[in-house]
Amino acid sequence: AAALISGHEDAYDGFICDEQSVPAAPGEFGVALDASLAVWQQKGYRGIWLKMPAAKAHVIGHAVDRGFEFHHAEKEYVMLTRWLPSSENKLPPNASHQVGMGAFVMNERREVLVVQERSGPLRGQGVWKMPTGLVQQGEDISEAAEREVLEETGIRARFDAVLAMRQAHGFAFGKSDMFFVVALKMEAGPQARELCMQEDELVGVRWMGLEEYLAVPFTAARPLFQKIHAAILAYVNGTY
Amino acid sequence: AAALISGHEDAYDGFICDEQSVPAAPGEFGVALDASLAVWQQKGYRGIWLKMPAAKAHVIGHAVDRGFEFHHAEKEYVMLTRWLPSSENKLPPNASHQVGMGAFVMNERREVLVVQERSGPLRGQGVWKMPTGLVQQGEDISEAAEREVLEETGIRARFDAVLAMRQAHGFAFGKSDMFFVVALKMEAGPQARELCMQEDELVGVRWMGLEEYLAVPFTAARPLFQKIHAAILAYVNGTY
Repeated sequence: AAALISGHEDAYDGFICDEQSVPAAPGEFGVALDASLAVWQQKGYRGIWLKMPAAKAHVIGHAVDRGFEFHHAEKEYVMLTRWLPSSENKLPPNASHQVGMGAFVMNERREVLVVQERSGPLRGQGVWKMPTGLVQQGEDISEAAEREVLEETGIRARFDAVLAMRQAHGFAFGKSDMFFVVALKMEAGPQARELCMQEDELVGVRWMGLEEYLAVPFTAARPLFQKIHAAILAYVNGTY
Repeated sequence: AAALISGHEDAYDGFICDEQSVPAAPGEFGVALDASLAVWQQKGYRGIWLKMPAAKAHVIGHAVDRGFEFHHAEKEYVMLTRWLPSSENKLPPNASHQVGMGAFVMNERREVLVVQERSGPLRGQGVWKMPTGLVQQGEDISEAAEREVLEETGIRARFDAVLAMRQAHGFAFGKSDMFFVVALKMEAGPQARELCMQEDELVGVRWMGLEEYLAVPFTAARPLFQKIHAAILAYVNGTY
């Protein structure tokens, strides 16, 4: 009998293949996968999870030929799945959302920390905006805000409050997007307050008076920012 | 000269390959990719985006051989990327979060809609809980809540409020997870109130008195649920 791909059952009547037991040679892989599929069908498994590391990329096509679909990928691997029953595929989808945040930081002169981006959709438009960035996988929103503000502007500030949240769709690669506006409080000490621009990502960083900030045409004209600005005003006036 | 892979520049000094112009035959693909990489280097591009549909899965390994890494995948394709400069790779990461929701629905007798799941970590443990589910890519949290409640229980209810939110890490495939507890208001009419259990996913659905619900040991013992229960009580008592 042909060697089988080993692995273990999951809590959903599925089977997770052991990455190490997947042959890297196309011929051997095809024989092992055919034999394994017959066994998995017989045992009544539903979803089969087959993780293919980059080193085995040359046999991915042979899994696709046998009815496997891509599920998700990270730098080092592609996950392929096959749903065995004739019923509707119940496998959980790939991660669906990116999470981003904008950081509202105000100094004791009621000036807001603003930046101008080097690339992206606002390139060359001279728009001043709060520092923004993506929350990384495994990172808290509060950590992401403190990290981005420090990396982009040199300012050290601590997470204080979530001011606003919005969900939107059709972002990069069709993913949905959750965006949080958070307020940070500056740390004490002159070193914590020295502006230091990240040249790779920005063409400008400065402090801007709160009233001037709220009147920036790019944002002031947008209904979403009218709500965000209302939350910012409530926060700075202590009525949030 | 060899045929080049065509495409267009993006707003970040990157290059997005035209999927149609990617050869499906390994030899032809390798020649075109080598020639294209030389041109892209010369033009000073930073990130290269190479989308490989399932029908071209047999040449993915040849892109990996030339320094491409997996970026993300959906059912029908794998996206590969290569960062050309010697500087740090600045390409945006893959979607990082799944978003889930739990739906709090109460009837006019102050009974809460609860379910028992057929599979997953709670299988066979007899735990009654609010209906939960993943928010799909492209779906609003409010829509997801209304959809899951109707699909799982037959109850028609409308989104009313977000009661709680928590972010956590290390979920399926290492992704981070955002979970929202939302309150729904039942629609009027006897048809909107008829319990109808989804047999595929559940082994039980019922109404449970609010006090009994708040005392379910599995949830009552957890600090997270103590916060969620406080929000629920504030909501039902009109002090939220």
